[in-house]
Formats: sequence, structure tokens, C-alpha cells
Amino acid sequence: MNNYSSQRPYRGIIPPLVTPLSGADDLDEAGLGHLINHLCEGGVHGLFILGTTGEAPSLSYRLRRKMVELSCIFTKKRLPVLVGITDTAFVESVELAHHAAECGADAVVVAPPYYLPPGQPELLEYLNDLIAELPLPCMLYNMPPLTKVEIGTAVVEQLLNNKGIVGLKDSSGDMSYFHHIENLAHASSNWSVLMGPELLMMDSVLSGGDGGVTGGANLFPRFFSAAWSAADNGDLPAVHNMQETMIQLQQLYSVGKHASAGIKGIKCALDILGISSARMAEPFRAFNEPEKQAVASLLDELRENPLLAADFDAVKSRD
Amino acid sequence: MNNYSSQRPYRGIIPPLVTPLSGADDLDEAGLGHLINHLCEGGVHGLFILGTTGEAPSLSYRLRRKMVELSCIFTKKRLPVLVGITDTAFVESVELAHHAAECGADAVVVAPPYYLPPGQPELLEYLNDLIAELPLPCMLYNMPPLTKVEIGTAVVEQLLNNKGIVGLKDSSGDMSYFHHIENLAHASSNWSVLMGPELLMMDSVLSGGDGGVTGGANLFPRFFSAAWSAADNGDLPAVHNMQETMIQLQQLYSVGKHASAGIKGIKCALDILGISSARMAEPFRAFNEPEKQAVASLLDELRENPLLAADFDAVKSRD
Amino acid sequence: MNNYSSQRPYRGIIPPLVTPLSGADDLDEAGLGHLINHLCEGGVHGLFILGTTGEAPSLSYRLRRKMVELSCIFTKKRLPVLVGITDTAFVESVELAHHAAECGADAVVVAPPYYLPPGQPELLEYLNDLIAELPLPCMLYNMPPLTKVEIGTAVVEQLLNNKGIVGLKDSSGDMSYFHHIENLAHASSNWSVLMGPELLMMDSVLSGGDGGVTGGANLFPRFFSAAWSAADNGDLPAVHNMQETMIQLQQLYSVGKHASAGIKGIKCALDILGISSARMAEPFRAFNEPEKQAVASLLDELRENPLLAADFDAVKSRD
Amino acid sequence: MNNYSSQRPYRGIIPPLVTPLSGADDLDEAGLGHLINHLCEGGVHGLFILGTTGEAPSLSYRLRRKMVELSCIFTKKRLPVLVGITDTAFVESVELAHHAAECGADAVVVAPPYYLPPGQPELLEYLNDLIAELPLPCMLYNMPPLTKVEIGTAVVEQLLNNKGIVGLKDSSGDMSYFHHIENLAHASSNWSVLMGPELLMMDSVLSGGDGGVTGGANLFPRFFSAAWSAADNGDLPAVHNMQETMIQLQQLYSVGKHASAGIKGIKCALDILGISSARMAEPFRAFNEPEKQAVASLLDELRENPLLAADFDAVKSRD
Repeated sequence: MNNYSSQRPYRGIIPPLVTPLSGADDLDEAGLGHLINHLCEGGVHGLFILGTTGEAPSLSYRLRRKMVELSCIFTKKRLPVLVGITDTAFVESVELAHHAAECGADAVVVAPPYYLPPGQPELLEYLNDLIAELPLPCMLYNMPPLTKVEIGTAVVEQLLNNKGIVGLKDSSGDMSYFHHIENLAHASSNWSVLMGPELLMMDSVLSGGDGGVTGGANLFPRFFSAAWSAADNGDLPAVHNMQETMIQLQQLYSVGKHASAGIKGIKCALDILGISSARMAEPFRAFNEPEKQAVASLLDELRENPLLAADFDAVKSRD
Repeated sequence: MNNYSSQRPYRGIIPPLVTPLSGADDLDEAGLGHLINHLCEGGVHGLFILGTTGEAPSLSYRLRRKMVELSCIFTKKRLPVLVGITDTAFVESVELAHHAAECGADAVVVAPPYYLPPGQPELLEYLNDLIAELPLPCMLYNMPPLTKVEIGTAVVEQLLNNKGIVGLKDSSGDMSYFHHIENLAHASSNWSVLMGPELLMMDSVLSGGDGGVTGGANLFPRFFSAAWSAADNGDLPAVHNMQETMIQLQQLYSVGKHASAGIKGIKCALDILGISSARMAEPFRAFNEPEKQAVASLLDELRENPLLAADFDAVKSRD
Repeated sequence: MNNYSSQRPYRGIIPPLVTPLSGADDLDEAGLGHLINHLCEGGVHGLFILGTTGEAPSLSYRLRRKMVELSCIFTKKRLPVLVGITDTAFVESVELAHHAAECGADAVVVAPPYYLPPGQPELLEYLNDLIAELPLPCMLYNMPPLTKVEIGTAVVEQLLNNKGIVGLKDSSGDMSYFHHIENLAHASSNWSVLMGPELLMMDSVLSGGDGGVTGGANLFPRFFSAAWSAADNGDLPAVHNMQETMIQLQQLYSVGKHASAGIKGIKCALDILGISSARMAEPFRAFNEPEKQAVASLLDELRENPLLAADFDAVKSRD
Repeated sequence: MNNYSSQRPYRGIIPPLVTPLSGADDLDEAGLGHLINHLCEGGVHGLFILGTTGEAPSLSYRLRRKMVELSCIFTKKRLPVLVGITDTAFVESVELAHHAAECGADAVVVAPPYYLPPGQPELLEYLNDLIAELPLPCMLYNMPPLTKVEIGTAVVEQLLNNKGIVGLKDSSGDMSYFHHIENLAHASSNWSVLMGPELLMMDSVLSGGDGGVTGGANLFPRFFSAAWSAADNGDLPAVHNMQETMIQLQQLYSVGKHASAGIKGIKCALDILGISSARMAEPFRAFNEPEKQAVASLLDELRENPLLAADFDAVKSRD
């Protein structure tokens, strides 16, 4: 798409892994192993653990550290591992980053602290201070619906020279913002610019973005990787075809009602597919039987979709 | 105000203490001691540590635990100590509550988890689950601007029978909500219902509320306690008189620009008064010289206000 | 409550009248006559037509003018008539104000234009420009949830010397804002400061406010007038007693689901009481049978409340 | 892009015309004529008058009718004319639609009523009722930041069979919503689906959308038409190239500070280019000298951009 794109550190699909749980404060370790194999074999380009989809803020610090250790072990360097260290407490972010480095992770991901929102100048100072103490490269994470503050374009502009930063993941859903960031980042840095919302992933790549951190790739890594390739190759007919499947997948995320509906839908489907547990961390709960039936029915419909066949076949053959 | 009000556990002014800091991850222990003495001698009715004003989410877990220990030691049972245990991670809230119990604290305070917001049914389950594991009585904390979710009246109605709860502190600024809660709580429980925003404290007490968790009481404990008494006694001329001072105090909270302006103003004034350090935890910074001069000027104006004389005199005599 | 309160132009209860309709673009003239008599005989202190509760923006200009004419005729100078002239188009506001003056109305009420929101300096200029062209005294109307912009305290401060203004009605629900305005207005002007939300009316009057523009007074003018008097006299036990009834009345406003639920509830109850039509203007609809039954049941419960007996008796005797 | 796209009624660039003013309630008729010629000669595909950019809600009804008459006269059937009839009052929308039909306009455009927001079922009934009374085909207009309500996908689904509707213009900025609508509309109707925000126009067309209602096309009709063609032809290198200019143009819209900054910037630039007056309707004001200088400087920079040369040349030659 761009002559210099090959110099950017992260390109392609980097799924935000769910955190499989077997108890209130226990990992479903077998499930995590299955999930990581499912993704590594599914052709994605990296793994992002302990993000929003990974329910990181809901996990105890002990469990977060365990999740980092096991993810690095199970991945066996097949793919880069990016670790979310977003926290309201500076010190906790730094410590988790050091733990990630010791475990062999490749990068960390940081959204603004999410309780009392900093102003833009405060955010700039915070990010510079934090990144100075990190032992790994840092990906910024823009998520204003949950952090109450945008990493504004003026702040991004001043961070472009910060050598500790390797890119920005935008989950705002605001495609105008993304265009501004993409324009800034690719004009004067080698940042990777990644898209969060699935329906915008191919748009973003067509317009010069580097890839997606798309929750649905937990389930369908081959489909999402193929969709990224189609967009990265500028194959518009394939993009149009695949976008219909992207829209079809959205139904999985709206079986539930509240803000956690998307994560619940993905975890429930992973459970039905025999990959990992549906259990959620407090304050959320796995779907009850009626919602579980609804997810199962949707999966049955999706099984008819030829674009998802490779993913369903891979799951079946693993049995 | 009400025949049964004497049975309610918390009445009066319970300042939300700032957390005095001497370094990025260090308490200003001397300052904390001064502050606690200033408040105990100032006639307030309880101490609330590790709330929003206490910058709790910005502090490392180690520092939060230290803050609980020292606050209990310095208070020497002169007043009840309430400890904020709000967290996005269930397990961390429970552990901090146990630590608070071991240190001799009297109650804990819980707002909803503040990253991905739970729906109302999820919030109800979460609160019941959490409170079942707490070793101390629990005060609910309604803070929708920062948690993105209100503890709705329907949820409150279903929590009225939960014996682990001793009341609700409302910082929403929505006086209609407060009236609904006050009506529910006092009809069928002995909950204390406390007000956060200072300008609404006397209104709330006139209408049957139990008191205030008012940031300005860090600075002027005698004034706030007297204001509470005036309202609790239904002394309307005194209330009107004191409300003008309440409005005058607001200027201290708007010297800065961002969401943290109120805390910065209080910490800066405490520093000028020789009580405790102005230092803020990341992602915030203490005021620079111009803002500090503005706070000093405001304090000079406030010194002329006879309603604040007792507080200023007490500070001076402590020197 | 205040030595100078007698100099303020509007004190007491000024109900925001619903607009009774008999067709998509027709007034229920008989109903309007009944309603105005019901209110004049019910002891309220003024009538406010063409506000939010009056569905003014939903009415054609022809119908708004007709509503002004008939309201003035039916009122027969028994009470002051205030006319809402809020509009997105400056010229239309001015023309409606002149029409109101010709019909014998006493004042106009103006909220900020409500499509593309002006900034604060733009709002200040707009209000000064508009008021300069008005033939009647003007009451400001703060309604940020619907206009997207607050009449900020800095703007109010600069308007205090504008001789065309007689007060401000605050429907923000933000009691801290109200205190700031009340403090500004009564320190340096004779503005009347009125409260919109019913649950805050008595709080506001206890703290020095002048009265309420309370939708429920369409139904229960005697009760609301008595509640205002209790607060204006500082009779706290009566205030507490009446506040419980205020909370009970809220159920009428939550039978429906959307933003129009309050108006629908009032219009439906007025219909059941035989006063005026339940019909709503587009884009809203009168309640269907199930909601109508719910309102009827609530009215039956309210009939048991002795504080509402005088209002129910007056309606019955009118039959 | 799509075999059936040729059956859709509106494709391409349909600028939302500013309303040139010469006084508080007077059209700059000469300016309007220049503007319409500028656009007709600039290769756009339709004209949309009385939208948000046209300040419609700020104009008196008399002026809106005049604007419709003159626009139809000046256009001389060179292009289809779409007329915004959005209003809070149903009757006024219908009357303006009839006026538009009499003047020879081709379609009307309707956003939800924008004061008290309807719920989704209310909105559906409202739109069906309104469209039944319209003498011209109707384009829906989704603009939640200003109307407070989205035309939700479930409502759109139920409107697909309404023969009075020819499409939907989406100004939400929410590209996920756009994808849902585009998918619904093109699967079962011949609706045109148009994009409002400029930075998203080419994305939307690449993904199957029909065109843009882009404010900047008032200034640069040739550039916007060429950008639309590049996207409609799937010419990705050209799209990337043009997107940089789109981003450069954004500076024009952020010289001012408030919500009206975009319209002010366009009107100011049109004035500098000698096309039409900079005057704004209340509650807004044309830029003062410093902002005007800033716009002039930006225009000087844009003059260096070869992609805009055709537009600048056309303006110069018109002198």
C-alpha cells in the first residue's frame, strides 16, 4: 500500500485475546493454550493480551501476571506478544511492564488512566513520564468511551518523536480521528496505526492503516487475516464480499444487552467451539442458557458462510 | 430532624482526605499526621480515606495499604475511619477491605467498578457478591460521572435488606436522585445518606440527609461542621449565611482547569497553610507558581471571612 | 425569606401549561379554558405557556399564536401570563414576542436556540441582541439537556445589568448551578430565580429561590402552591411531609418510556380528570390503553393522599 | 462499484449550500447566484439547500421560502435541488415541502425533530406520518449530535419499504452505523446512501456508498467531484493522494472555536474568494479580522496545492 509500510513494526491482525477463566481468580490454562494455538495456527500477526476484551481491569494483579507468563510460554515465540499495562496507578503499570519484559513479551500497550480524566497537557506529561520507565516498546491505545479522554491529535503530534512508541491502536470508532492520526504518524514516523472496531478495519487498511485489533479474530483468525490481506492488497471486490461477513458477525456481539455484550458473545462462542471457557470476571457473568442458545444458533448460521469455512474446519479437526 | 436519625451509623461531616505525598510512590507521613490532627481537632464526625479526593486509583496498592495503616494509627480511634476499596478488580477490593479491618478501620466505601460499565442487574449481583466477602460494614458510593454507571434506584431498593450496607454517599450532583434515595433509605432502613458536592450539603441535610463528604472540610473542618449543625438544626438564617461562604470556597476549586482542579486546589491550600504537601500522584501535577499565587490570594480573601476564623486561628496556633 | 424578595417580579408557582389539542393542528379550546380556570382557582401565581411541557417546538406558528391569544383571553388578567418564545430563528422569536404583547401577555421566556449550539460569547451576544428587540420583560430559561448549552454563570453575570431581564428559570437539575445563579442574581439584581424540576422546588425556595415552574402543578395547583408556601415560610416539618408526596407524584411521569413520558403522563391524567385532552403533537402520541390504565391506577392511589384532597375535590365539584 | 448502483437516485457530490446573507433577515441574492453557478459549473451532482451548513433552523420561515424559490430559479434545472425541511413542527415541515414542490425542487431532506427527542418507535411513526404527506421524494438525514436521536438501524429496516424515501444521508461520523445502513439499504432497496463528514466520504464510497454531502464542496466543487470519482472507480493511489488534501482542508474548519466554526470558515473563505457574503445568521457572527486573516493565509497555502488548482482557476476566471 505504501513503500515504507514494511518498516512499520506491526502490520496485520493482532487479536485482543479474551482471558479464559476457570474460577473467580483462576485462569483456564488449558483453554488459554487452545486459544493461543488456534490463533497462531490461524495466521494472525501478533497477540494482544490484557486489553479491554481481555477484561484486564477486572483481573487481580496476580492473575494478570500469570496471564502474561502463560501467554508467553504457550506462544513459544511463534508470534509477538503485546501486553496491556493500562492502569490508573503509574507504579502498577511500570511493574507489569517489567514483568512482561522478563516473561519475554515484545511490547506493551497503554491507554490513558481511566478514573479521573487528565487534561491534554497532563496526558502528554504522563505518557512521556511513563514511557521513559518502560523496558519494552509501547503502543498507545485510544479508547475515549472507556477512558473519558482522547489522546488528542496535538498530543500525538508531540509524541511522534518519542522513540519508545511503536504505534497507536484506535478504538474510538471515530474514523475522522483515525485519518488524522494515520496522516500524522505515517508522514513523520514509522508508527503502526491499528484499528479496533471490526467494521472499520478494512476501511482503515484501504486508507493506509496497518491492521486491526479485532475481537472477532479470537474466533475466526483465518477470516480476519484474509480480510486484512484483501484490504492491504486493495482488492475491492473481495473487501466488499468480506464486509458482509463482518456485518453478519456483529450479531454475535449483540446477543447480550450491556457494555460487556461483545466479550460475553465471544467467550460464549469460544466455549461452544470447545476452545476455552465462557466464564467472565466480576462484575460480569457468562451468558445464561437462553443467550447461549442464541449464540449457538448464530454459530450454526455462520457455519453456512463459505468465508468462515476454514476457521470452522480447523476447530473441528482439532477435536 | 427525624426521630430515628440517631439510629443511623454516620451523621455529620466526614471529609474525604487528600493523600499527602512526598514522592511518586511515598506518603508525606508528617503531613498526614498533621492533617488527621487538624480534622480530629476540627470537630468532624469521621474520616474517609482513599476516595476520589484521596486519588486512590492513582496510588500503588502498596501505598494504599500504607495509607490505611498510618491513618488508623494517627487517628487513634478519635474518629471512625472509612476506607475506599473501589476497584475494577473484585479480588483487590476484598483484599484491601481485609487489610482495613486488620488495621482497625470502621467501614469500607465502594463505588461501581469503573472501566467497562456493568448494567444495572450486573451491578446488583456484583454488589451483593462483594459485600458478602467484606469483613467491615459497607457504604455505597454513587459517582456516575467517573464510574459511568449510576447505582440506580431499583438497585438501591433491592439492596436495602442487605445487612452489610450502612449507607450511601451520593456524589452525582443530581439532587432528584438524592431525594429518591433518601426517601427509600429512611423509609425502610437505617442507612446513612451522605452528600458529596459541597454546595448541596446543607440542602440535603435540611431535607433529611445525614451529612456530607465534602472536600473543603480538609481545609475548614470547623466551618463545615458548623454548617452541618445549622442545617441539622433547621436554622435557616444560619444556613443562608453559610451558603454564601460555601459559594466563596468554590473559587479554590476552579483555579486549575481540568477534572483534577478541585483536588489540586485543596492540596495547594493545605501546603500553604503548612499542613501537608501539595504533591499530586501521576497523571496529575501540583500547581505551578502562578496557580499557587492565585490560591494564596484566595486564602488571603478567605481569612477576612469571620465564618472561617476559627479554622484559620487553629492552623496558626498549631505553628 | 429575604427582605428584598417582595421586590422580585415573580414568586410562587408558575405552572408550565400543557397545550390541550383536539387535532394535529387544532387546540382543544374548551380544555384550555378548563385548565386555565383550574389553575387560576387553584391559587398558583402565574401561567407559563409554550414551554417544553407546552410542546411549543412541536406546534405550528399559527397554533402558537392562537395559544397565546386564547390563553390571554381565558385568563382574564387573573394571573400574569408568561409566553415561551424560544426559537432557533431570531426573527420568529421577536415576532412571537410582539404577538404576545398585543394579546396582553406579561412577559416572555427565552432559552438558547437549540439546534447548532452557540458558544458562551455567542450566546451572550445573542441574548443581548434579542432582548433589545422584545416588547415585554424577559425571563431566561436554562435547559441544557435540550438546548445543548448552559447559560453559564459568566454569561449570567454579564446579563445582570440588562434591564430587560426579570429572572431565570433553571431546568438543568443541577442544584450547584442554581446556587451560583441565585447568589449572583439576588446580590445585585431583583431577578426572580425559579426552579424547574419538581423534587428540587422546595430545596430551592428554602435556600432563597423564588418559586417553581413545576409540571405537576397542571394537575395539583393547590398542593404545589401549599408546598411553595411551606418552603417560603421555612416550615421544615411541612416541607418534609410534602416532599414525600412530590416523590409519589414522580410515578406519573415514568409510566411512559421516552423523553416525552412526563408530558404524556400529565396530559393523560388531565384527560382522566375531565380537564383537557390527552392528545400529543407529533412526534409524540397519547398513551395507549395499558398506560392509560396505569395512570388511572396511580390517580386512584393519589386520591388517598390527604395533601392532594383539595385538588381532587375541586375537580370533582367542577363536574 | 455495484451493478445496481446506476438505479440509485443520487450519486456523487451534493454540496450542502451555505445560505448567503446580506442582512439579519435578507438573502445575499447575488452571492447565491454566484455560488450556484460556481457549483453547477464545478461538476457536482446535486444541490442541498437548508441543511445544517445552510443554517436553516436560524432562518425565518419567510427567508427559508425565499431561499427555496431563488435556488430553484438560479439552478435552472442544471442539477437536482434537494430542500431541507427538518423542523420541530410537523405542519411547518409539510408546508415547506409543498412550497419546495411548487418551486420545482426535486426532493426534500428530513432529520428527526430536534428539541425533545422521540424514542425509536415514536420516530418511526413520525417519519411514516410525515412522508405520507410529502409531495416530493424524501432523503432521511441522520444527525444525532444535533438531533439527540439516531435513526436506528431497526427503524431504517422498517422504512426500507416506504416508497417515499430515496435514501439516507449520514452525518453521525459513526462509520460502523454507515456500514450497517449501507448493507441494509443496498440489499433490499435502491436507496442512495450518502456521507456527511468529508474525511469519511471516500471511505464510504470505496465501501459501496453513493456519495457525499460535503461542506467543503461549496468552495472546491471540482476537487470533491474528482475525489468522489476516484473512490467510485476504486483508484486507490488517487484516493490516498486526495485524502491528504481532505485533511489539509480541515484547518479551514477549525479557525473558529465553537460548533459553528466549520460554517464560519466556509462562509469566510467564500467571501474572500468573491463568491458570497460571510455574514452569519443569529446566534452566530462572521469571523472578525484576526480569524479572517487566518482563513486568508490558509487559502494562500491551499493555492499551492495542485489538486485544488482547477477550483482556484475557475474562481479567478470568473472575476
